[in-house]
Amino acid sequence: MKLSEFGEDRLLAELLPTFSRTKSVILGAGDDCAVVRFPAKGNLQLLKADCIVEGIHFTASKPAGLIGWKAMARPLSDFAAMSGVPQFALISLIVPSRTELAWTKQLYQGLEKAARAFDVTIVGGETSRTSGPAVISVSVTGFVEKGRWVTRNGGKPKDELFVTGRLGGALRAKHLKFTPRIKEARWLTEHFSIHAMMDLSDGLGTDLPRLADASKLGFEIDEEAVPRERGCSLSDALTNGEDYELLFAVAPRVGEELEKCWRRRWRTGLTRIGRLTRRKVVPEKWPTGYVHFK
Amino acid sequence: MKLSEFGEDRLLAELLPTFSRTKSVILGAGDDCAVVRFPAKGNLQLLKADCIVEGIHFTASKPAGLIGWKAMARPLSDFAAMSGVPQFALISLIVPSRTELAWTKQLYQGLEKAARAFDVTIVGGETSRTSGPAVISVSVTGFVEKGRWVTRNGGKPKDELFVTGRLGGALRAKHLKFTPRIKEARWLTEHFSIHAMMDLSDGLGTDLPRLADASKLGFEIDEEAVPRERGCSLSDALTNGEDYELLFAVAPRVGEELEKCWRRRWRTGLTRIGRLTRRKVVPEKWPTGYVHFK
Repeated sequence: MKLSEFGEDRLLAELLPTFSRTKSVILGAGDDCAVVRFPAKGNLQLLKADCIVEGIHFTASKPAGLIGWKAMARPLSDFAAMSGVPQFALISLIVPSRTELAWTKQLYQGLEKAARAFDVTIVGGETSRTSGPAVISVSVTGFVEKGRWVTRNGGKPKDELFVTGRLGGALRAKHLKFTPRIKEARWLTEHFSIHAMMDLSDGLGTDLPRLADASKLGFEIDEEAVPRERGCSLSDALTNGEDYELLFAVAPRVGEELEKCWRRRWRTGLTRIGRLTRRKVVPEKWPTGYVHFK
Repeated sequence: MKLSEFGEDRLLAELLPTFSRTKSVILGAGDDCAVVRFPAKGNLQLLKADCIVEGIHFTASKPAGLIGWKAMARPLSDFAAMSGVPQFALISLIVPSRTELAWTKQLYQGLEKAARAFDVTIVGGETSRTSGPAVISVSVTGFVEKGRWVTRNGGKPKDELFVTGRLGGALRAKHLKFTPRIKEARWLTEHFSIHAMMDLSDGLGTDLPRLADASKLGFEIDEEAVPRERGCSLSDALTNGEDYELLFAVAPRVGEELEKCWRRRWRTGLTRIGRLTRRKVVPEKWPTGYVHFK
């Protein structure tokens, strides 16, 4: 059955009861706004909106459940980048009238699966039709303790740079299945002073200069050290994008202890790839990664 | 110049400093998430996401500033519907690479103008390209005092139904220029007990049954009383949609006093159009308004 035969009210009425609810949700999807409790005093609020577009971030031939997973996991990855705790999500679904109801349900199941994996509640939804490619927009709100949030701009000269996992080759499959590094990021700020952090969405080649720029610094990279996915060249690792791994900077003395503790706690890899420098010179052969609108 | 020549980082770098900031914003657009202060204790958080799509909610021939105004004003109208105070907005802009930079700037100026009119800060943005029609998705967070928020489901039998303004004909111009009824809604809950409220986005013909259904009631309407825009038939007023006026229900004894006070305070009209009833029968000739996906 097509969405056009089914109608928005019925779609939402079917989907809403399938969403999990936490105690913080006072009024979930279905009214004009969602109503939720603020977390305990001493916290700051985090906000992030993101979207994925058919033909850009996914192809229609992929399973709808994975597309939903990706749509939710991307903004959650931004929460990881700040060491924040995501809580509530709003979905805007923009699809053609001919879209199959079954596809839509699978998409929401993927969204819900990713949300549930991180105790996030889907508290609202909006649907619209379009004559063009499908768009799934997800906004997430949550919190972070005062003094615990990590931006891109806190890097200091000589800070050591680390990345989690392996880079490159995400388009083969990982970009639809990645795990936002929320738990790892929370662990990092619980045990160490992280000076600057971000998630790698556009590739290390684009994102590392962003972190260095924000910190008003340059960087040096040990190119051999960059952890690559199997079959990936250094160029792939720097430019493929959609890794959704963490890139972060810590004081030089901290690095060794951090690596030791990390290995005891996590199966995901952690690699020291270089350092921030006072001189702001991008390495001559540094590739430019994925640039939006190009 | 096209966006494709300009690049996302430069676009955001140019636009971000133009956004106003309130004291509650700790970190605005530009990092992985926005960081903001929670409002004072005793409040609940409100969340709403909405989007407008080229060819559905606007045509590309309209001024970009008005399109931006509409994109922001729609979710603000949902805050009015709950009697809430909007605070922070996130924008996702999904446009073709060929989109003109000047158009994009005008769009953001319209978004910012509507935000500023209600003390809302744009704290984040995300851009993506698409091969299809433009989509502007706006999420808004804010608060409402405990005990002051109004849902659709609190209507009681014999409650009197009111609408603000005049209905119908919105597509001629109003849909790009309407004022969200936030101030009016806050005034209503400051002075009166409002049992149920919503904003009219799909037309009274669709939205009134939604409010009645949510309250598990029926309704009676004095069709002659429905306030119409000049040149609009009753059918236009019920089905055109995009009125963004408030529909609300109050106890029968309250209505007369409310009307009197309203007239002293507001230039916008207020009209008693009927009542909620125990019998749940939709009037035989009741039109069905705009239905999504059709």
